[in-house]
Amino acid sequence: MTQPLPGKKPAPSTWRDRWYEIIFEADTPSGKLFDVLLLIAILLSVLAVMCESVNSIRQNYGGLLAGVEWFFTLLFTLEYAVRIVCARRPLRYVLSFYGLVDLLAILPTYITVLPFFAGGPDAQRLAVIRALRLLRAFRIFKLAHMLSEATALRAAIWSARAKVAVFLSVVLIAIVIVGSAMHLIEGSTDDSVRTGFDSIPESMYWAVVTMTTVGYGDVSPSTALGKAMAAAMMILGYCMIIVPTGIVSAELAHSGGKGITTQVCSECMAEGHDLDALHCKYCGSKL
Amino acid sequence: MTQPLPGKKPAPSTWRDRWYEIIFEADTPSGKLFDVLLLIAILLSVLAVMCESVNSIRQNYGGLLAGVEWFFTLLFTLEYAVRIVCARRPLRYVLSFYGLVDLLAILPTYITVLPFFAGGPDAQRLAVIRALRLLRAFRIFKLAHMLSEATALRAAIWSARAKVAVFLSVVLIAIVIVGSAMHLIEGSTDDSVRTGFDSIPESMYWAVVTMTTVGYGDVSPSTALGKAMAAAMMILGYCMIIVPTGIVSAELAHSGGKGITTQVCSECMAEGHDLDALHCKYCGSKL
Amino acid sequence: MTQPLPGKKPAPSTWRDRWYEIIFEADTPSGKLFDVLLLIAILLSVLAVMCESVNSIRQNYGGLLAGVEWFFTLLFTLEYAVRIVCARRPLRYVLSFYGLVDLLAILPTYITVLPFFAGGPDAQRLAVIRALRLLRAFRIFKLAHMLSEATALRAAIWSARAKVAVFLSVVLIAIVIVGSAMHLIEGSTDDSVRTGFDSIPESMYWAVVTMTTVGYGDVSPSTALGKAMAAAMMILGYCMIIVPTGIVSAELAHSGGKGITTQVCSECMAEGHDLDALHCKYCGSKL
Amino acid sequence: MTQPLPGKKPAPSTWRDRWYEIIFEADTPSGKLFDVLLLIAILLSVLAVMCESVNSIRQNYGGLLAGVEWFFTLLFTLEYAVRIVCARRPLRYVLSFYGLVDLLAILPTYITVLPFFAGGPDAQRLAVIRALRLLRAFRIFKLAHMLSEATALRAAIWSARAKVAVFLSVVLIAIVIVGSAMHLIEGSTDDSVRTGFDSIPESMYWAVVTMTTVGYGDVSPSTALGKAMAAAMMILGYCMIIVPTGIVSAELAHSGGKGITTQVCSECMAEGHDLDALHCKYCGSKL
Repeated sequence: MTQPLPGKKPAPSTWRDRWYEIIFEADTPSGKLFDVLLLIAILLSVLAVMCESVNSIRQNYGGLLAGVEWFFTLLFTLEYAVRIVCARRPLRYVLSFYGLVDLLAILPTYITVLPFFAGGPDAQRLAVIRALRLLRAFRIFKLAHMLSEATALRAAIWSARAKVAVFLSVVLIAIVIVGSAMHLIEGSTDDSVRTGFDSIPESMYWAVVTMTTVGYGDVSPSTALGKAMAAAMMILGYCMIIVPTGIVSAELAHSGGKGITTQVCSECMAEGHDLDALHCKYCGSKL
Repeated sequence: MTQPLPGKKPAPSTWRDRWYEIIFEADTPSGKLFDVLLLIAILLSVLAVMCESVNSIRQNYGGLLAGVEWFFTLLFTLEYAVRIVCARRPLRYVLSFYGLVDLLAILPTYITVLPFFAGGPDAQRLAVIRALRLLRAFRIFKLAHMLSEATALRAAIWSARAKVAVFLSVVLIAIVIVGSAMHLIEGSTDDSVRTGFDSIPESMYWAVVTMTTVGYGDVSPSTALGKAMAAAMMILGYCMIIVPTGIVSAELAHSGGKGITTQVCSECMAEGHDLDALHCKYCGSKL
Repeated sequence: MTQPLPGKKPAPSTWRDRWYEIIFEADTPSGKLFDVLLLIAILLSVLAVMCESVNSIRQNYGGLLAGVEWFFTLLFTLEYAVRIVCARRPLRYVLSFYGLVDLLAILPTYITVLPFFAGGPDAQRLAVIRALRLLRAFRIFKLAHMLSEATALRAAIWSARAKVAVFLSVVLIAIVIVGSAMHLIEGSTDDSVRTGFDSIPESMYWAVVTMTTVGYGDVSPSTALGKAMAAAMMILGYCMIIVPTGIVSAELAHSGGKGITTQVCSECMAEGHDLDALHCKYCGSKL
Repeated sequence: MTQPLPGKKPAPSTWRDRWYEIIFEADTPSGKLFDVLLLIAILLSVLAVMCESVNSIRQNYGGLLAGVEWFFTLLFTLEYAVRIVCARRPLRYVLSFYGLVDLLAILPTYITVLPFFAGGPDAQRLAVIRALRLLRAFRIFKLAHMLSEATALRAAIWSARAKVAVFLSVVLIAIVIVGSAMHLIEGSTDDSVRTGFDSIPESMYWAVVTMTTVGYGDVSPSTALGKAMAAAMMILGYCMIIVPTGIVSAELAHSGGKGITTQVCSECMAEGHDLDALHCKYCGSKL
């Protein structure tokens, strides 16, 4: 990373560097404290949004919850401003994933007071506003990057992405075909009778519900042929889950597992040698 | 593969060889472009068939969708003809899996205009025609062979086929026996009362729904003994899924996993080298 | 195995030895043919029992199915008699798992004509007889021992039995405790109101349905606390399935997998050496 | 462990040491017998509590069950007292997990006869008392520490705890966000119409039911957008289960799996020997 400021990393002299360490990093005591306090604030604000959505709570504590809402919104706005000021490359922060999430977390509350939205007491429009407000729950995403283990997981999933893509497309094709077939078997041509298989998209919804073994039961086959086909599909779905599981297991077993040393070949700088390797597998020099 | 034409692979001189490269292969820029365009066309045509099955859309845009239908059918017919002309062994293509899928993808639309089918306005017969039309969704299968990763997956599943067959037959036997037992426990001898366990096939349907953990709830036991048996079966089904998962995991961990070659070091005869290894990891000699 | 007859294995001279080879073994052409024919007969007889349980089929083809039933029963009786005659140790065969299954497969049909059962036309009693008849489905178990792969699977599951036992007892304890807690939360003290959580066994049934992710929906919590507890339990059940899967995966990865040679140490006769082993790991002599 | 008594382990001379061996350890014949008898007593008492919760049984055998209840309570009280007397560090036992479970297992029965609780015949209050009584089911937890395999499992799960924590927080965040989104899509603003998505907590309950593939069907989406979102979430949930499975599989495959020692061959420095290896598998020298 290029540093536009002449400050050195080990001993930050300017206030911006000190603030940067506290807000963006978590390896100093004050940085750790800041992150923990922020986490608590995020959880409390998410809890407040949740409580507000319950009718009986909103009727009794609506005013209090609105106050809490504004308190956290202003707090997070302040935090967002400080982050922009302290960041070495403000624009990169703003456009990064966490930068966008930070912005989306504070926007909804401000939007509700804009004249355009506040004007009409239309219930439906208000519902849309509530939708934006709920995006605040994204704040909680910040949880993830506090845990370093996530990296290993992400690496394993990433290295298995091609296999998972193949698997998912096979699943989707199976859903399209089985959904279509069930539409033909179970769908009624009479518009007044609704079986839940009245169009291919509806049948596909059923196929997803069945194949993922969720099985709500809001739509279920009634003819003998439909039941036979559904049974075949369930067994297929039951067997299919083993494939991606095997993929990720194998991936994790190899990467984290089979034992790759962190040793680097002194000759060709290659990495990824097995634990039992005596010679670099690329250039043949002794490890 | 034997080549009846005197053209060389690196520099195809005849127009058939050039077209062959574009249509059947995907390693030249024009071949890649063709495959991507074909993929988009397939997805759009599948989407059109889906939309047509929704009543409200068909009533409003029926004419447009019929036009789109015919446009794609003619396009795929042209593609099918060019494939036959370009293929080095046309008959082998026609009888291959993708050849049959290509044919089945265009047939339904033509069949609907045949005098035999177009004659009567019988709703039920039309429903059968729709069934054929939906086979067009098979087009999407072409997706699969664009992803080379599918091969590794297929190999792992193939090498585990015997174990999976044993597993599936045990599952099926369990379904037959549990289905029969539940029919005896829950089935009513009175014809006017229907419990959903009135015959062994119906009880087997329930057993599949339960064992695969789908659990619609359209049929569920009502007696104490039936519930106890159902609970036992659920735990069995819950435990059973671990077996095939383990099988495929182990299979992938060995074969497809990280890629161990069957190559043997010519110096020390050591095995187990990675696919990307250039030198023996035990003695350092070149592989 | 001790052989009471003086015939040698490679060249069976007596008729009993020849019949033994055909009926009990499957490595000669005639033995293979016998097993395949037997398999088809078993499947057909199971199919006949299934068809008979469907009311509409029984009313139309009841006589034919009864005939088929008796044909297969007599056929299997004959087979059972020949097996006893040919077996080198008849009593061991009769008391073995397959011997008992063979007996149970033919008994039900005979029992239905006994005076005691045939006497009264009581529907409930007949239902009990049907139950015995359905045990014939056990015949299909013979399928399993035709597939040699089953051995590897059984070995993996057997070596993981202690871990699976721990897992299952944890699951059962969780079901007892969660079932009891839900009974207290959701159960009504009023006898006239039935919530499906009215006793601990009923709540445990719900807990099994939930924890195995079957989720019929015939019983589901209605209070806020009950829903919160159910949600916690679902996540627990969702996480729990990973444990046995991991156990069996690891077991299979090691036994079938990591590569144990079938090589036996010539010095100490120890087995189970790794594929990359140069020396016996027990006595140190060269393999 | 420090021993405040001057008795030696191999030959316990005092009665306290002998009792300690019988009650706390299970490696002597009498200790084993004691544990098995205790296990049977625990199972019987849990069974009695279960039976008592069934209305029809309580009405007929209420008196007998109350007697059984008191018999086991007094038996376990006696056992608890002896444990405290025999334990080398009584306080440590009382505050240990099993000590607390032992206490909680006997308390409920005593509490029901306290004047405070026995005073009013209020049904609801009695229900709360029953709740305490059911904690007795915790006794069954003692099962776990009899199986030594539990340790290997616990170690594998423990070493995977960070990855599992990341996984669980991702699942919880997904549940919060999807629940909120579904509340906005499916929730009605009209108080008199209840869709099951009327508040974020209710929607989150649905999200848990769906994501864990339980799928009761008591709440299910009705709008097209809601169904599409639900389908996406099911596929996400279906894919997500593979991640923790892979984690634990890999963890077990490494650690608990076959048992590779950290022992290094003193001759050739080779690693990766099995736990049961006596000689280096590469050079044959003694380990």
